[in-house]
Parts: sequence; C-alpha cells; structure tokens
Amino acid sequence: MIRNDTLLRALRREPTPHTPVWLMRQAGRYLPEYNRTRARAGSFMALAQNPELATEVTIQPLDRYPLDAAILFSDILTIPDAMGLGLSFAEGEGPRFARTTRDEASIGELAVPDMAKLAYVFDAVGSIKRALAGRVPLIGFAGSPFTLACSMIEGGGSDDYATVRRMAAARPDLLGRLVDTNARAVAAYLREQIIAGADAVMIFDTWGGLLTSAAYRRHSLAPMRAVLASLAADPRTAAVPTIVFTKGGVGWLDELAASGASAVGLDWTVDLAAARARCGDRVALQGNLDPLVLLTDPATVAREARAVVEAAGPAPGHVFNLGHGIVPGTPPENVAALVETVHTASAALRR
Amino acid sequence: MIRNDTLLRALRREPTPHTPVWLMRQAGRYLPEYNRTRARAGSFMALAQNPELATEVTIQPLDRYPLDAAILFSDILTIPDAMGLGLSFAEGEGPRFARTTRDEASIGELAVPDMAKLAYVFDAVGSIKRALAGRVPLIGFAGSPFTLACSMIEGGGSDDYATVRRMAAARPDLLGRLVDTNARAVAAYLREQIIAGADAVMIFDTWGGLLTSAAYRRHSLAPMRAVLASLAADPRTAAVPTIVFTKGGVGWLDELAASGASAVGLDWTVDLAAARARCGDRVALQGNLDPLVLLTDPATVAREARAVVEAAGPAPGHVFNLGHGIVPGTPPENVAALVETVHTASAALRR
Repeated sequence: MIRNDTLLRALRREPTPHTPVWLMRQAGRYLPEYNRTRARAGSFMALAQNPELATEVTIQPLDRYPLDAAILFSDILTIPDAMGLGLSFAEGEGPRFARTTRDEASIGELAVPDMAKLAYVFDAVGSIKRALAGRVPLIGFAGSPFTLACSMIEGGGSDDYATVRRMAAARPDLLGRLVDTNARAVAAYLREQIIAGADAVMIFDTWGGLLTSAAYRRHSLAPMRAVLASLAADPRTAAVPTIVFTKGGVGWLDELAASGASAVGLDWTVDLAAARARCGDRVALQGNLDPLVLLTDPATVAREARAVVEAAGPAPGHVFNLGHGIVPGTPPENVAALVETVHTASAALRR
Repeated sequence: MIRNDTLLRALRREPTPHTPVWLMRQAGRYLPEYNRTRARAGSFMALAQNPELATEVTIQPLDRYPLDAAILFSDILTIPDAMGLGLSFAEGEGPRFARTTRDEASIGELAVPDMAKLAYVFDAVGSIKRALAGRVPLIGFAGSPFTLACSMIEGGGSDDYATVRRMAAARPDLLGRLVDTNARAVAAYLREQIIAGADAVMIFDTWGGLLTSAAYRRHSLAPMRAVLASLAADPRTAAVPTIVFTKGGVGWLDELAASGASAVGLDWTVDLAAARARCGDRVALQGNLDPLVLLTDPATVAREARAVVEAAGPAPGHVFNLGHGIVPGTPPENVAALVETVHTASAALRR
C-alpha cells in the first residue's frame, strides 16, 4: 500500500487534500548529493545502469522535499542503446550514438530489443520500490517513439532535427517504420517497468512539437496511442495511470486528451485554465511552471507557483510539475519554496 | 499602381486568381547572387545600411522566381542599434550588442530613437519601390517589441533566453517598461517605412512563444496590439495591411486573430485548416510550409506545397509562405518548384 497516494488519485481525477507535486529531473545536477553519487558512479550511464546508485539518486530529492512522487532515475535513450546503436555520453556534451538509423538498411534491420538487455532498468524499479517502502508512488517512463527516432536518426541531439524533418517530408514511409518499431519497444519497456513495480508511467515526447500537424499525427501521436492501447489491453498494466507529454504540443491538446492517457503534461507556455476548460474532465493535467522561474528567488517562485495552482483551479485532476525539466543551476532552496507553496496554496484553494 | 497586387488583395481577404507567395528570408544566403553582393558590401550590416545594395538583394529573388511580393532587406535589430546599444555581427556568429539592457538604469534611460538614425532603412524602402516600379508590393517589417527586448536583455541571441524568462517572472515591471518603449519605437519605425512606400508591414515575434501565457499576453501580445493600434489611428498608415507572426504562437491564435492585424502568420507546426476554421473570416492567414522541406527535392517540395494550399482551401485570405525563414543550404531549384506549385495548385483549386 502507498501511504501518500495523492499522485495516483489526482491522475484518476479523484479528490485529494492538496495538489500532488513532483518535478521533471527532480533527481539531478542541481542537488549536491546527486553530484556526489554521480562522481562515485564515474559516468551518467554507469549511474543509470547501477540499480543501487540509481535508487540512491531517485530517493535523494524525496529526503529533501515532501514531494508526492518518485521518478525512476534513467534516460530515455536506454531503448535505442539496447537496440545496439552504441550510446555514449561524452563529458560536457549530449548523448551520441555510434550509428545513425536513417536509411532502408538500418531501419529495416531494427528490432524490438530483448528486454533482458534492459534488466538493469527493471532491477532499479524494484530496488527503488523497496527503498520507498510505500512512501509515495514511483513513476516509470520512456521517450516517445518519435523522440527516440529523433536521436536515432540524427545520431544524437540536434539544434533543428533537420534530417528528421526532411525525412518526415520525403520518406514518411521510412520514418513510419522506425516509429512503429519504437512503439512496440516502448510498450514492452513500459510493461516491464510496471510489472517491476512502477505505479504510473509517463511518455516524454520532447520533439513531437517540431513536426507539422500531419506529421505529428502520423509519427508522434499515433505511435504514442499504440503504446497506450497496448498497455490498456494487457490486464497486468491496464489499471496503471499514464501521462503523455508533448513539449510544444498545445496545438494538439484535444487529440492528446483523447489519446487514451490518464493525464496530459503541459509545457510552461500553455494557459492551464484554458487547457482545463478545453479538456473538461476527460483527463488529468500535469504542469506547468516555467523551470527558469526556479532560477529566481523564493518569493517569486511562490508567487508564480500560486498562479499555476490557481489556474488549475480546485477541481480534481491536477498534478503540479514544471513545464520542462529542472535546470542544473537551480538553487535547492527555491525547490523547497515551490513544494511548500504548492501544498499550502492548493490545500487553501480546496477549503 | 501595383500590377501584381495579389498579396494585398489576399491580405484583405479579397479573391485572387492564385494564392500569392513570398518567402521569409527570400533574399539570402541560399542565393549565389546574394552572396556575391554580400561579399562586395563587406559585412551584413554594411549591406543592410547601403540602400543601393539593399535594393539589389531585395530584387534578386524576384528576378529568379515569380514571387508575389518583395520584402525589405534589413534586420530586426536596426532599432536597438539606433537606440545606441552597439550592434555588431561577428563573422559566422549571431548578432551581439556592446551593452545589455536588463537593469533599472539601462531600461530607464532607453528612449525611442530619432528616426533620422534609421534613414538608411527608409531610403532603402524608397529605392526598392523605385526599382520595383509597380511589379509587386513591398513588405516592410520590424521585430516585435518583445523579440527586440530578448536580444537587448541577453545582449544577443540565446539558447533559452533565460535572463528574459527570469525577468518575466521576477521583474515584470521592468520588462514591461522595456517592451513598452520598444512598442513606441516599432510603431514609429513602421510608420516611416509606410510613409517611404511600404505597401504592407509585418511584425516578427520570433520569441514570444517562449513565454508563459500570462507573460505572452502582457509582454508580447499587448505591445504588438499597441503598435497595430498606433498604425490604425494614423491616417497615413491606417489603410496598409499588417501581418503579425508569433513563432510557437498556436496557443494564442484566437488572440492574434483579434489583435487588429490584417493577417496572422503561422509557423509550420500549425494545422492550417484547423486555424482557418477557428479564425473564420476575421483575418487572412500566412504560411506555413516547413522551411526544411526545401532541403529535399522538387517532387517532395511540390507534394508538401500542394498539401498546404489544400489545407488553406479555396476561400480568399491565404498568403503562402514558409513557417520560418529559408535556411542557407536550400537549393534554388527547390524554391522554383515551390513557387510554381503554389501558383498552379491554387489556381486549379479555385476552378
């Protein structure tokens, strides 16, 4: 049993005494204790692949702040790594793949990886669940099929994902095969995370917002729907709440609300009150403070956090979060002010 | 009199035999003739500040393609340069200002610049109008008050405009003073461009889409509305069509349609058919091919351009454009395929 289950209740749009809050990248470089564990691990991937250390960093923010959820410490690129693309993180740079996946041959030979190659992730889920001991729920996650495709096609990060966008126009068939393979891999991966103990799962669609509307529907939304449908069809996973988040996706809010997910994540540019009016009670909403507000001061953080709580309103079905991940320079005391404000302001709003 | 006035008629939502087409950054580095003139000028700013050479590069794309409009060759940062901030373009890098404008003192002393300092722009407008000799309309432009503020605050370009976003949260009063000063400058600047001969004007809000909804309304939309209201209130400028373009602004489409502009520009992520349904006949719409489609091949360009023409539908009030500027690596023959396709497909659609 989970003692603080406000997250799960909010995702099901059930009343809660306060708005639950967790933060994308809540375990990360803004925390000195994270940096110490990271240094001990030697590298980012060594940290992510060591269930004991991944557990340690997952729990760290919960020991500092009364957060309402833990999120698995991992990386979205574990799947393409398990597909054999040779992931590495050079110091001070983003992820790189040894091989790109952008032609008939490389996309044709791509297959859903053996989930045994990702056992370190599921072991981390189990280890974190034991460490949490029912304190709060654990959120599992994956990158969206399209967002994974972005890194696989470009061979890493990119300023404009030009190769991806060219492929969406010139070879939609090829991109479609890639994202469909990724969708099967993501569904299998989230299923195993749930079986290992994840209480909710989130799909991070970081790059779907770069696409034209037609390409978004085919290459980002449709494969996410396929993942959600796969989880909904399996009795082992059907009851677990799901969150889908397309950064820059406000134009497709109605479609995201109808995607089959329990909740839709909103980036910081979205008018949360308008989104709530638009979605009605179809889904829970998650978000959406600008993460850079956490670079200011506790008073500003409190004021802006209250504005988000008030925009969400007193109705059930809001999970407080940032509109994107915490940035490394965030002062930890600002996060304390944020969590405190969300709890007190949302409890007051309900009275 | 303008012989091909399809742009102006489309901006007024009057019927035209075909959809007019022009392209953001149609005079630019993808054209070898532009690069030759640019080399003769010595630097980007020398080119922009020389009316004769600015005229030459403005006309170049019209001599290659049957485009339906010319757009003044200039830069949005001419205004802060005239404010005395010391603009420079280092070779291979973006713009830099010698001074930032982010504290009480620097924002307090900022003033609308003497338009005489921008005479080179208005001289270029007059010179281009003479060179066009009524061939097509000339579009003048300015950066939005907020987009100018972004560069002034950061001292140049930025990955995330973190200082701006922090200021929007912590010092909205200060940011408000800056954008309001910029709005008065932009209004004066566009007024002079119109008096010098510009047939339509466009406001480029490149960075408004980075803001929270509340901050967008206060710091980007409101000052743009002030600019548009100022032009509408002056008998010398009231009749000239206006275009407003917020990149990443789909969430505020209704508000942009009610901003007072004749037309709303749409980036490539927007569903043009849905935008048309939403805006009804309140405004013309401009856009919105993904500029990276121009990096593919003529057949793909033609297919994607037809899709945009069809999404816009046969009703009056569509100006074809890209969803952002042409990128330097664009093959000129792809632009030829684009313009040809827009003209033939849109003429066919009307029959």
